[in-house]
Amino acid sequence: MTQQAEIYWSSEEKIIVKTALENAYAREVSALVEDVRQRATQLTGTEEVWQLHDFLSARRHDIDGKYDDRESFLLYTLSRLVKDGWLDLSELVGLEPGKRAKVNLLTRM
Amino acid sequence: MTQQAEIYWSSEEKIIVKTALENAYAREVSALVEDVRQRATQLTGTEEVWQLHDFLSARRHDIDGKYDDRESFLLYTLSRLVKDGWLDLSELVGLEPGKRAKVNLLTRM
Repeated sequence: MTQQAEIYWSSEEKIIVKTALENAYAREVSALVEDVRQRATQLTGTEEVWQLHDFLSARRHDIDGKYDDRESFLLYTLSRLVKDGWLDLSELVGLEPGKRAKVNLLTRM
Repeated sequence: MTQQAEIYWSSEEKIIVKTALENAYAREVSALVEDVRQRATQLTGTEEVWQLHDFLSARRHDIDGKYDDRESFLLYTLSRLVKDGWLDLSELVGLEPGKRAKVNLLTRM
């Protein structure tokens, strides 16, 4: 991942992005909760409980790194969430069109 | 925890101890599986899934450290499992009486 060139974010845009990130996070973790519940009902063996732990460690590491809200990474962060299906481009309406185009472009990389 | 003085373990005793440790481990992890299932059914919020991860990390760390089967630690390991209820002193029948007495004594410390 390369750092984006300095981009100006207006306070309105910051609110849109913040909301978008919060919504994506809520969706992703909610799906994770469903997944964990599912796995938990199938827990039987002793090894499986450690596999569940490994799974949660990996998902947490992934999610922690993914929601990078530093301004210089926002376009990349948003594009990745769109790509992974946790965010829809339509939720970024209100951002300067050039930014949305860049997010869109990044989702194809 | 202080290291036990050099103790001789016969091959029969080693088998008894190995079986005892395996049984205690199976019981403890089986109780953990039940606990995790229970917690998983109650998962709702986003924070709770990370709390479940923290819980599993702590339990794994605890359990990994607990089943120390180095010979010089066996008496301590066994006593701790008896103390925690995962092992019964009766499962150590076949060990030299002096060892069982020491395990019993250590459970009260």
